[in-house]
Amino acid sequence: MILLHKISSACCYERVEASFSRQGLMKVIGAVLGNVDEGSVEIILPHSERVTQQQGGFHGGAVGAIADIAAGYASLTVAPEGMEVVTVEYKINFMSAFTDGELVAKGRVLKAGKRVIVSAADVFHVNPANGDLTLCACLQQTVVPVPMKY
Amino acid sequence: MILLHKISSACCYERVEASFSRQGLMKVIGAVLGNVDEGSVEIILPHSERVTQQQGGFHGGAVGAIADIAAGYASLTVAPEGMEVVTVEYKINFMSAFTDGELVAKGRVLKAGKRVIVSAADVFHVNPANGDLTLCACLQQTVVPVPMKY
Amino acid sequence: MILLHKISSACCYERVEASFSRQGLMKVIGAVLGNVDEGSVEIILPHSERVTQQQGGFHGGAVGAIADIAAGYASLTVAPEGMEVVTVEYKINFMSAFTDGELVAKGRVLKAGKRVIVSAADVFHVNPANGDLTLCACLQQTVVPVPMKY
Amino acid sequence: MILLHKISSACCYERVEASFSRQGLMKVIGAVLGNVDEGSVEIILPHSERVTQQQGGFHGGAVGAIADIAAGYASLTVAPEGMEVVTVEYKINFMSAFTDGELVAKGRVLKAGKRVIVSAADVFHVNPANGDLTLCACLQQTVVPVPMKY
Repeated sequence: MILLHKISSACCYERVEASFSRQGLMKVIGAVLGNVDEGSVEIILPHSERVTQQQGGFHGGAVGAIADIAAGYASLTVAPEGMEVVTVEYKINFMSAFTDGELVAKGRVLKAGKRVIVSAADVFHVNPANGDLTLCACLQQTVVPVPMKY
Repeated sequence: MILLHKISSACCYERVEASFSRQGLMKVIGAVLGNVDEGSVEIILPHSERVTQQQGGFHGGAVGAIADIAAGYASLTVAPEGMEVVTVEYKINFMSAFTDGELVAKGRVLKAGKRVIVSAADVFHVNPANGDLTLCACLQQTVVPVPMKY
Repeated sequence: MILLHKISSACCYERVEASFSRQGLMKVIGAVLGNVDEGSVEIILPHSERVTQQQGGFHGGAVGAIADIAAGYASLTVAPEGMEVVTVEYKINFMSAFTDGELVAKGRVLKAGKRVIVSAADVFHVNPANGDLTLCACLQQTVVPVPMKY
Repeated sequence: MILLHKISSACCYERVEASFSRQGLMKVIGAVLGNVDEGSVEIILPHSERVTQQQGGFHGGAVGAIADIAAGYASLTVAPEGMEVVTVEYKINFMSAFTDGELVAKGRVLKAGKRVIVSAADVFHVNPANGDLTLCACLQQTVVPVPMKY
């Protein structure tokens, strides 16, 4: 069972990584793909000058981008073969601001329908001193599966 | 009247520009501040490799970031002096994808309350050949005014 | 042209009314179908004890319900024949509370795609003394067309 | 500990019930207050002709109303004494439709800030035959605490 699980995860990882590595925005802000499993994906974003708002904290736009991607790729792991997913919409609440360490966005599928997949992502700050997690943002997202074109 | 209008806009522009120029994320993706007036702000984002998703189109995260900023700065122009605004949440729908030209996000205030300001932003694609505008995304946003700390 | 327009509206009205009249919730809260045109629908809700929250004002749930319906039926007017629409999600901001008069929710289509239709609704309070309109709530909504089953 | 917990819950229940019982809309649709604890509240809605859409299923407006209330009252249980909460906005995704049994909306607080409280609610269908729960809708909500006026 554990072996089977790892194989499944490896499949998921390759599928997500093939898409993630093509995203110019993720490269430029320094985001990294973390754990990938069926129905869940993590994106990690270290703090740097590339992701700041006016006060030196993580920019809401950067937080939204990794949350969107984490939830969207979670949906991708449950979409039929040969399909990719397009974000229809998302909504995000911001709870806390941080100016150091890194963020981890944990995406998960809520409901995988034929026409529509609904996912969520929680974004946590990882304290660089002790690894403590603090909830920074919550996203809820709708995607639709579409035939892959590349 | 026109003169008065221009003076008012100049004030708004300086206030927004002072914050915008401090945002590392906007620099790294190549976003530019456009027209600023009381209650409305434009952000322009040219297409480049810095803002792409896996198909070479504008990344939803980049679209969300400029829409968030356009609506948030529209709110800033109506916030009391000495205050800035913090994004509580936003929701964005994506309608069309483009792989060239530039985007313009037009933010506007819907309701300026004491505790809460509600704004919206429409993001348009500008056709590089003829300047035609196509609606790409619609955002609805909530911010709260807070004392400025920098 | 005007005649053609009226015929088109009449078609739209019948299509929307056939669905609206089947909604038990709308009956019980006293909501009424207003103007219907291609791409736009109005729902009217008079104040009564059936629609109140704890302070005697219009309940957010009632405001959300008529905004959802107004936007959804606006989408229905542009959906292909033989299809109806199912609400995937909506987001609503509340701006003002009122304890008298009536509300009118004005739905409009933002983008009618094949797989997804995006709409919006503004809810206004109508002052019973002078007819003045005040913006109470703004909704943004996603629906999908599905084959009609009744 | 268990005793203390029950006392705390009893306090929460009275506070929520005092507000809930004043809501005309909840009476008219037949919604009932369920479990109340610090940071979490349940609202139950039996199926009836009062809550239907055009196909006889639970109306999205009714689902939204109980989800809004469940999340809002969860926030109320953590708001300072003498304050109540006002819904600034919410976003809801609909996953499944049902034409019988009852719904239970389970609200929970995600982050209780001074100026803003963020909550969520999951709405489940309860199968009348065997009690099985199916996720029907997910809501994410923002409220602000305000002085109580009644």
